[in-house]
Amino acid sequence: MTKAYAAESEHSGLAPHGIERRELRDDDVAIDILYCGVCHTDIHYVENDWGGTLYPVVPGHEIIGRVTSVGKDVKNYSEGDLVGVGCMVDSCRECSSCNQGLEQYCLNGMVPTYNGEDLHDKSITYGGYSEKIVVSDRFVVRVPEKLDAAKAAPLLCAGITTYSPLRHFGIKEGHKVGVIGMGGLGHMGVKFAKAMGAEVTIFTRSESKISEAKKQGADNVIISTDEKQMEEAAETFDFLLDTVPVQHDLNPYINCLKVDGTHILVGLLEPVDPALQAGQLVMKRRVLAGSLIGGIPETQEMLDFCAEHDIHCDVEMLDIKNINDAFKRMKKGDVKYRFVIDMDTLKQS
Amino acid sequence: MTKAYAAESEHSGLAPHGIERRELRDDDVAIDILYCGVCHTDIHYVENDWGGTLYPVVPGHEIIGRVTSVGKDVKNYSEGDLVGVGCMVDSCRECSSCNQGLEQYCLNGMVPTYNGEDLHDKSITYGGYSEKIVVSDRFVVRVPEKLDAAKAAPLLCAGITTYSPLRHFGIKEGHKVGVIGMGGLGHMGVKFAKAMGAEVTIFTRSESKISEAKKQGADNVIISTDEKQMEEAAETFDFLLDTVPVQHDLNPYINCLKVDGTHILVGLLEPVDPALQAGQLVMKRRVLAGSLIGGIPETQEMLDFCAEHDIHCDVEMLDIKNINDAFKRMKKGDVKYRFVIDMDTLKQS
Repeated sequence: MTKAYAAESEHSGLAPHGIERRELRDDDVAIDILYCGVCHTDIHYVENDWGGTLYPVVPGHEIIGRVTSVGKDVKNYSEGDLVGVGCMVDSCRECSSCNQGLEQYCLNGMVPTYNGEDLHDKSITYGGYSEKIVVSDRFVVRVPEKLDAAKAAPLLCAGITTYSPLRHFGIKEGHKVGVIGMGGLGHMGVKFAKAMGAEVTIFTRSESKISEAKKQGADNVIISTDEKQMEEAAETFDFLLDTVPVQHDLNPYINCLKVDGTHILVGLLEPVDPALQAGQLVMKRRVLAGSLIGGIPETQEMLDFCAEHDIHCDVEMLDIKNINDAFKRMKKGDVKYRFVIDMDTLKQS
Repeated sequence: MTKAYAAESEHSGLAPHGIERRELRDDDVAIDILYCGVCHTDIHYVENDWGGTLYPVVPGHEIIGRVTSVGKDVKNYSEGDLVGVGCMVDSCRECSSCNQGLEQYCLNGMVPTYNGEDLHDKSITYGGYSEKIVVSDRFVVRVPEKLDAAKAAPLLCAGITTYSPLRHFGIKEGHKVGVIGMGGLGHMGVKFAKAMGAEVTIFTRSESKISEAKKQGADNVIISTDEKQMEEAAETFDFLLDTVPVQHDLNPYINCLKVDGTHILVGLLEPVDPALQAGQLVMKRRVLAGSLIGGIPETQEMLDFCAEHDIHCDVEMLDIKNINDAFKRMKKGDVKYRFVIDMDTLKQS
């Protein structure tokens, strides 16, 4: 049995639990987990906000650890390697998306790191709030030793979710990029866009966040609740990276895009309300796009980019026994910017 | 005085009117109008549907005619040339959009062919329901003599509005393109997408239009009101060209896009209702884009493309004295696919 923290029901909160990790298959990598980031998605699954949670659920998809053993066909990893696992642990591996390294868009459905169903034995997948995990080598990435492993954990979700669209949509030097929302995703978006050479503006609702935004490296800050500031920003941005996960009015932001500008949604999964003004797209050939995490090759590229540019996530370390309090604080937005569980605290418990 | 048809108020309908055309400026081209297409926008202006109509209004922005004289600086056109004028007659000519030949997105606002204000003398612009027009050479395009001039008139609006986004978003051989709506714009979209090598599907609400859709060159037809057909089409299209000018549910169409697919709006200017499902964009990295007519260099390219590929608009010729009846028929969708006024009927009236 492997020690883990699991929720038994939507009201139970997380508590110690024993889970089974599978025997190594030929392409498997066994990982001793060092750190696991705490993503807002974890809360949604624990509390069954989206329906479909399979209890007991062991959350966690921002996993960093060291390889303890590998299956006989594994060539790229060996014992002691520092590795990461993100939001996916498998996919069909043969559709057009998988063949392009876009496993997150697998046409047959990717297998999420937790609350998913293994394609081989139909067992339920358990995430990273756990001592160990066993994952097929295709879904393991190498973490450069140069990175601070704890601060690298959230790169596996918050990092790749922002890096991928910035790369895909071609952000580069000279672009004016706005980042909407300054949480776990937003603060990573700022770091990446800056490292790609863009001039970066943070849109925030509160004046109290201006100094923090500047500390994150933003060149400018716009208070999104200030109509005058928003009007002055009209038609000045090439890209907007919108990390806000709840319904919000997109129209004032889209008005900030230049001709051919692109508004990229990475957080919003709900109906757009207030209604999107189609004329704002048509009259300026603007684009509204979405993007979901990132593929495995791109996740590796992102980690290497972070090592090269000395980029990491701002984290608050967490003892796993305080995880339920951490969830409460996250709901209030009270974390800068990501909790990361030190898995030693589980092993010693 | 130049003979024209104008509306004097929102309820008056169109009637004969005398208007002044300006004396030639150095860069002006004087055109004797042969044909003018009738666009639904003309109705909106005549009836002041969008507010802001300046009466008397002379509609018409799908103009074909022959040059009768030119200003002293005009090098590219001379008497007798077959030329066209579309939706714009001027712009600032110095902003980043104008410098890219995207005058329709002029940052200082382009001057529409009618109901606009001339940048030099502040006079109100009058459109193509008229014997003559005088336009700066930059906003005149050459019509290949190979084209049927009457059937070419609607290319100046319906044509370029569909050609431009298909080119801009890179439609090419092997792409699966869906065209939503089969009116003046939609039927041109089918012709262009086919000529660019795409496999083209028409989405229509009515089974009665299947044979007509096939006649237009569509490879396939999907009845959009048939949920089963729409579900079967899920994730199969690279591009959708949406020509519908009234509110409609975008979500079932967006569901038809592959990963990285693009839904292009060219007709809708209103709020998107029912609400756009953001998750449909995020989960498949899909794009919702808009596009407005096209720039002047691209309009020339489009006309040359039509000559090369023998593309023209399907038209019904109109005596200008029947223009008010034509408006009534257009409101019922009773035209295949564009009315074109034979301007001889004005000259002889």
